[in-house]
Amino acid sequence: MVTSEFQRARRPEHKEQRREAILAAARTLATRDGVREVNLGDIAAEVGVHKSALLRYFETREEIYLHLTAEGWADWTAALSIALAEAEPTPAAVAATITRTLVERPLFCDLLAHAPLNLERNVSLESVRAFKVASLSRVGEISELIGTALPALGKSGGRKAVAAIAAFAATFWQTSHPGEVLAQLYDELPELGHTVRDFAGRLEESTAAMLAGLASTVS
Amino acid sequence: MVTSEFQRARRPEHKEQRREAILAAARTLATRDGVREVNLGDIAAEVGVHKSALLRYFETREEIYLHLTAEGWADWTAALSIALAEAEPTPAAVAATITRTLVERPLFCDLLAHAPLNLERNVSLESVRAFKVASLSRVGEISELIGTALPALGKSGGRKAVAAIAAFAATFWQTSHPGEVLAQLYDELPELGHTVRDFAGRLEESTAAMLAGLASTVS
Repeated sequence: MVTSEFQRARRPEHKEQRREAILAAARTLATRDGVREVNLGDIAAEVGVHKSALLRYFETREEIYLHLTAEGWADWTAALSIALAEAEPTPAAVAATITRTLVERPLFCDLLAHAPLNLERNVSLESVRAFKVASLSRVGEISELIGTALPALGKSGGRKAVAAIAAFAATFWQTSHPGEVLAQLYDELPELGHTVRDFAGRLEESTAAMLAGLASTVS
Repeated sequence: MVTSEFQRARRPEHKEQRREAILAAARTLATRDGVREVNLGDIAAEVGVHKSALLRYFETREEIYLHLTAEGWADWTAALSIALAEAEPTPAAVAATITRTLVERPLFCDLLAHAPLNLERNVSLESVRAFKVASLSRVGEISELIGTALPALGKSGGRKAVAAIAAFAATFWQTSHPGEVLAQLYDELPELGHTVRDFAGRLEESTAAMLAGLASTVS
């Protein structure tokens, strides 16, 4: 049993280690099974402790995943700051680059839909404040990166682009990862599922159109 | 008690009346409190019957709301077929018309996020098949309506427009209707919530840019 070791964490660096172990377990399980499938008991079992031990480090299952969403925004920002610097300044090239960075981050795409619908609604004011301040700061950075990659957009167009791209990624990720019953229907009637299952294709195409439209309409 | 009357519904027209009463109650409660807040017990109480009585008419709470989502697609299609016929053939005018029809349908906007994330995942194969076939047929009709209103898009551009607009409506509706704790944060720090709370403004602006982009990129 790891439980007693877990309970003895009194020094700050040990507490931080415990938090990291919990986040790593939550990350592993959600990457494998999808965010919706993982509950607090699953995370506790993966860490090797009782559920109640987790609650000394995080308020709720949702706080754990909101933390991973904030981490996802930071990680995506870092990736974009490198990738966009090398992209041709066209809507199509920037869309392809953005899509590639999102396709490489399946857990973040899954979390993007769960954050507003579930995660943000089941945490304390302090936790949601920390999350919003951190993630909106990343949104601001990404807005600038996109506005720099496509100067016709500017920062205001960049901000609208981030909101649209996050909406596409959140929505198209869920529709391209249907539940068991819907997946069965798509196997039975492939013409129903053909388009929606192509996450990367839909995301890139929609992002390219949105960036072209913002470049032509933003003043 | 209405229960015994409810239980005696054996003739098809009476069964249909019961189903309608259940759907009406689910519609009323979700319009008032939001889809997420309504459970099967609430709907039963609103109808005036025991929860178990509902399960003779619908499989789950989710089937009830999936039915209302299909109804929402049909109703939105009908509204667009009238409204788009009168819109100027510009991205901005078409976006304003589409936005108005969605703002007038708050329950449908709320359901758009819940359908792929929750509703479609908690019903039988038969129910999800009926829903998908019906709603994809409406998506096809709306694609044609948008393609006719903006001939530069054509039906293929129309289809991409519907997917994008549904993603915007689903995402921006949820962010513009935060939970209690997040609403408290937005009151405390208005600069965080200012933009996201303007559902109609964000939807219209994003839709206009998307339509302009599709008009310039669709071949």
